[in-house]
Amino acid sequence: MPTSAPIRLRVFSLNCWGIRYVSKHCVERFVLIGDLLNKEELDIALLQEVWCEKDFLFLKKKLGNVYPYSHYFKSGFIGSGLAVFSKHRIHDAFLYRYSLNGYPYMAQHGDWFGGKAVGKVLLNISGLTVHVFVTHLHAEYCRERDSYLPHRVVQTWELQQFIRHTSAGADVVILGGDLNMHPDDLGTRLLRNCTGLLDCFTEATSFDGCEGGNTHITENPFTNTDELIPYEGGIRIDYILFKGSGQVDASCESLSTTKGPVPGQPFPYSDHEALTAELLLTPTKKGYGCSEREFGCVADKIPDLVNMVNEARTEVKVGLHCAERMRHTTSRTGIMGLVLLLLELAIAAVPLFALGAEQPFPKASFYLLGALCFAILLSTLLLYIFYSMEVKALQGAEDQMRLSLRSLQESLKVSPKVLSSDLFQNPPDDPATLEPDN
Amino acid sequence: MPTSAPIRLRVFSLNCWGIRYVSKHCVERFVLIGDLLNKEELDIALLQEVWCEKDFLFLKKKLGNVYPYSHYFKSGFIGSGLAVFSKHRIHDAFLYRYSLNGYPYMAQHGDWFGGKAVGKVLLNISGLTVHVFVTHLHAEYCRERDSYLPHRVVQTWELQQFIRHTSAGADVVILGGDLNMHPDDLGTRLLRNCTGLLDCFTEATSFDGCEGGNTHITENPFTNTDELIPYEGGIRIDYILFKGSGQVDASCESLSTTKGPVPGQPFPYSDHEALTAELLLTPTKKGYGCSEREFGCVADKIPDLVNMVNEARTEVKVGLHCAERMRHTTSRTGIMGLVLLLLELAIAAVPLFALGAEQPFPKASFYLLGALCFAILLSTLLLYIFYSMEVKALQGAEDQMRLSLRSLQESLKVSPKVLSSDLFQNPPDDPATLEPDN
Repeated sequence: MPTSAPIRLRVFSLNCWGIRYVSKHCVERFVLIGDLLNKEELDIALLQEVWCEKDFLFLKKKLGNVYPYSHYFKSGFIGSGLAVFSKHRIHDAFLYRYSLNGYPYMAQHGDWFGGKAVGKVLLNISGLTVHVFVTHLHAEYCRERDSYLPHRVVQTWELQQFIRHTSAGADVVILGGDLNMHPDDLGTRLLRNCTGLLDCFTEATSFDGCEGGNTHITENPFTNTDELIPYEGGIRIDYILFKGSGQVDASCESLSTTKGPVPGQPFPYSDHEALTAELLLTPTKKGYGCSEREFGCVADKIPDLVNMVNEARTEVKVGLHCAERMRHTTSRTGIMGLVLLLLELAIAAVPLFALGAEQPFPKASFYLLGALCFAILLSTLLLYIFYSMEVKALQGAEDQMRLSLRSLQESLKVSPKVLSSDLFQNPPDDPATLEPDN
Repeated sequence: MPTSAPIRLRVFSLNCWGIRYVSKHCVERFVLIGDLLNKEELDIALLQEVWCEKDFLFLKKKLGNVYPYSHYFKSGFIGSGLAVFSKHRIHDAFLYRYSLNGYPYMAQHGDWFGGKAVGKVLLNISGLTVHVFVTHLHAEYCRERDSYLPHRVVQTWELQQFIRHTSAGADVVILGGDLNMHPDDLGTRLLRNCTGLLDCFTEATSFDGCEGGNTHITENPFTNTDELIPYEGGIRIDYILFKGSGQVDASCESLSTTKGPVPGQPFPYSDHEALTAELLLTPTKKGYGCSEREFGCVADKIPDLVNMVNEARTEVKVGLHCAERMRHTTSRTGIMGLVLLLLELAIAAVPLFALGAEQPFPKASFYLLGALCFAILLSTLLLYIFYSMEVKALQGAEDQMRLSLRSLQESLKVSPKVLSSDLFQNPPDDPATLEPDN
């Protein structure tokens, strides 16, 4: 049974840049991160890019006294990199792997191997059911020509679907992580508007940290400053988002970020800045219903939401077009490989019929060419399978978006005022449910 | 606002065996299935193995008048094969792809290519929020030596996690599909006990169909009767499960199955029998609370649940052991391929230093062996990546199971009587919440 006294919750999020043998001072930085977490005595710490399980186990041991509960989310080839440390018992954990996450042959980017996902843990804090989500979306390597944009849009779509569908029973919802999207990017807006989650940076009563809440800044010695030149001070791509419910009023008291170099330490904690938010949760006696602040209970939002979903659908269609083109190119290359192989076999058959020819048969070239044909056939087969799966995933996301659009448009027709972000959970089929005070 | 009059809901489920060019009379059978669905005028039809989108589009067109709403779930290389047709508007759709689903190199079984998943659609029927799930788990090819058992157990685990986490806001939950598990198999018990879902076959007031509710029977001319010999009449592997909530009492009025050959038709609808359940939904005014029948509100169930999760964990560990062994073998083979390649390069280097040797260099064997080495290296690399992902997925499932076990055991310590299947949603941290009447 929830207590009625306000509860203060301190939440931490950091992309740890924990790529062993690649990230600078990886082992030493995990020691520093552990020290910081132990000193801060937070309620929940959400970590990303803890790629190596050894580093998670090191932290688990180091933090055991302050954070007796933890969960490490495993997925993909390397892992999801996601870890949660909590002062409160973790009752349940669940993982959703995004259906798209880059390309395996883009090994230099490596996202595909990480098995990016959204992890959820379920906590009970003073009688309140708190659903905590942690995620890390596909990186943006080139903002001008971002070939991964459709993948990130689909990831955002799946993230908001996962949060909406799994948090119906939550008193409080918290999401932390590296979204790899700027605050006004399509994905960030889509996520906020579909789920009703609020951004700690815009909501915090007090803020202490980098200008504009930036989490990827030029002052950080690990950062490649060239890519940040157009953005001067840096960019904001890490977030802590939250919302309450009819049962709990949630607000953000304060937000802080680290600021690059750490005084007294030889280097920063990571190439990203860490976020610490202090949330205030006040149990209400309102019961289920419309909470103006948390859900944005205004009909005006629906047209925006419709535009956003349309925009997302366009991006997905662009991605679909690319994926289909790539699949087409792959199948054409495969056919060429097959023709080459048949041609070679025909050439090989010639000496059989023209016995006694004077020219010796060029065996070396024959075998080399044969091997090449097989390599082409095998790689195009694998790529064809991969692109077909990409096409299916993109089509699936687009179908879901189309369905949501129809639902949104239908609800606009039926009623001028509707609980926008709760739309999909409580579909407004029955006009009675659309009355604002029902 | 829900009406208080009882609502009758007719739900249909069929594995359509729709493998074009492989399944017998595939196109003709979809015509028959369409006719049946149009004649029956059901509320919801849940179809599996609609592998070809053309067949879905054919049904969509054919059923448009009776079932104006439909959704086709796309995933994997071929698709998930899952389709929903509904008389009621589909407000939202969401898909969860299972992290494990067989092996790509087992092409003769083909499960991997299908991208097996659980699909969810959200309906609003007379003011009730109805969450409908459709799924198809990995096939069982050999019951005695079932190498896919760990994969199916992980799929079941993820299925129950998905249902539990996404249906907190539901008034009614319905799951239909081909689980490829017998009624007393570990997976089926785990699913029923974790989610609180009830089996229409055991709950139905009246039943009309194959003996024992079997859905894969010897009388069906498409069935391979050899594999059913140990089970005489057949096996029950297709299910419709349901549960109500504090808001709605749900019961099953009747269940029927098709019985192999269809009178007046040249062949059956599929190699599986179709299920039709009639559910009675009675809105209550109880509000949230303990509904003895739907949730099995007895503490006695927790030890059973603990045993089941332990049993599942053992299966997953067996799978993990196999996957790790396979990965080990793969890496050893890869190393052998590498050694062979180096050896070959050394042999190739010999003539360079021993100029004027009399023996001609065996170019053909050299190139053939080189190609073999590369083939070994490439295939072991791909297999190593695949097995690593399998290991990660199995470890992830085991971690979640361990967490759930701890939660269950903790709740047993804290209170002797607890709402078992609701455990994870309302974790019993606060002893006050554990009082049976709270």
